[in-house]
Amino acid sequence: MRNLLITLRFDGTAYCGYQVQKNGPTVAATVQEAVEDLMREPVSITGCSRTDAGVHADMFCLNFRTTRNIPTERIIPALNVRLPRDIAVYGCREVPEDFHARYSCVGKQYRYQIYTHPYRNPFLEAYSLHHPYPLDLAVMNQAAEYFLGEHEFAGFCSAGSSVRGSTRRKVSRCQFQQKEDHLVCFYVAANGFLYNMVRIMVGTLLEVASGKRPPQSIGELLAYPNRSAAGPTAPAQGLFLEEVYY
Amino acid sequence: MRNLLITLRFDGTAYCGYQVQKNGPTVAATVQEAVEDLMREPVSITGCSRTDAGVHADMFCLNFRTTRNIPTERIIPALNVRLPRDIAVYGCREVPEDFHARYSCVGKQYRYQIYTHPYRNPFLEAYSLHHPYPLDLAVMNQAAEYFLGEHEFAGFCSAGSSVRGSTRRKVSRCQFQQKEDHLVCFYVAANGFLYNMVRIMVGTLLEVASGKRPPQSIGELLAYPNRSAAGPTAPAQGLFLEEVYY
Repeated sequence: MRNLLITLRFDGTAYCGYQVQKNGPTVAATVQEAVEDLMREPVSITGCSRTDAGVHADMFCLNFRTTRNIPTERIIPALNVRLPRDIAVYGCREVPEDFHARYSCVGKQYRYQIYTHPYRNPFLEAYSLHHPYPLDLAVMNQAAEYFLGEHEFAGFCSAGSSVRGSTRRKVSRCQFQQKEDHLVCFYVAANGFLYNMVRIMVGTLLEVASGKRPPQSIGELLAYPNRSAAGPTAPAQGLFLEEVYY
Repeated sequence: MRNLLITLRFDGTAYCGYQVQKNGPTVAATVQEAVEDLMREPVSITGCSRTDAGVHADMFCLNFRTTRNIPTERIIPALNVRLPRDIAVYGCREVPEDFHARYSCVGKQYRYQIYTHPYRNPFLEAYSLHHPYPLDLAVMNQAAEYFLGEHEFAGFCSAGSSVRGSTRRKVSRCQFQQKEDHLVCFYVAANGFLYNMVRIMVGTLLEVASGKRPPQSIGELLAYPNRSAAGPTAPAQGLFLEEVYY
């Protein structure tokens, strides 16, 4: 049995998240159908993470085992013709038998996009939070720095999380950057993420931006975890899974 | 009567172009409906240009006359709530009685996006030509420079054009630039454009890139206009109207 690692991009707008579930189309089900159609055998697909409904991915990894011997370079175009426009594969390679897209992952980076122009932008509406006010990135980055290092993130995790083990995570990057044309991007890299963690971090940091809480309150939320003391969960459509590290 | 100039963005994917016509939804008809709903009177809308089906605009200008006295700063949000997600107004100002969005325009700039990655990208599929080969921008820019200055563009104009007057146009910018992540942008600014002119320029310059014609053949096409000697019309979805000058 070959174990294949597939790298893909998807626009999550039309999907109820990555994971297979009953109430609507998912990226996992759509990819599984394309893979089974190509391989002509049932396959079990393992994704690198569960993304929420409406979340996008510039890089998403998944693996599956197959008895077929189609060369890896022919698998990419063969999958792309079987996938809808909003999902596209761009990498395929053979990995060791024990490789697991989720458990072998040592870290990920997410990007959250915020559009700060007073009026909405048709090209960014499905790919950003529209926050029609200027943002003080210096203050926001001062607050974001509290997340760097290893901390207890239980206060930045939604109820309904399936995480049973530790809720400690190590953040290696946490930074806002101004992009062209009223677009602010928040980058966060960590060895793992809890349910809704990035979106709650963004919701809380936007409260710092609006003066509703001081930057040092982030340190307190990490020291004394309390979900209800953190900010709201920012909307899904601004979030992109950007890098997956193995 | 006030004469109002409106600036907007639109994602052209779902529209049969800007101009009102019978065979499908148009940007003009959609905007007119929103304006009439707000103004509660019939209005006649004049657009700065006719864009083809599927072409986008980062900046599009139109004007109309109204008897209503709604302050300009209140018109923008009032129109945006009446417009679909793929059209958004971001500017509104009063202009002199004789201002005409099309005839008062002294120039425009278009951008054409080309995605050169070997595999398609879900986020760019509706906003670029997917040309899955590397491009030699030095050669393409050498060819593009022939367009600079005033020339006869009849060879770069599709049949079915409604232009009756001169087909001479003055090009002030004509340039390819490499953007991040396999995205190449072609920028062209001129005092006016003929029907399909930018798309035929791009189709012809891509033939230079593939070695099918030498850069100097552009000079010959301008000196001896012949539509059938120029390249094909590049697809609409890569084209953005980017600047409109008054």
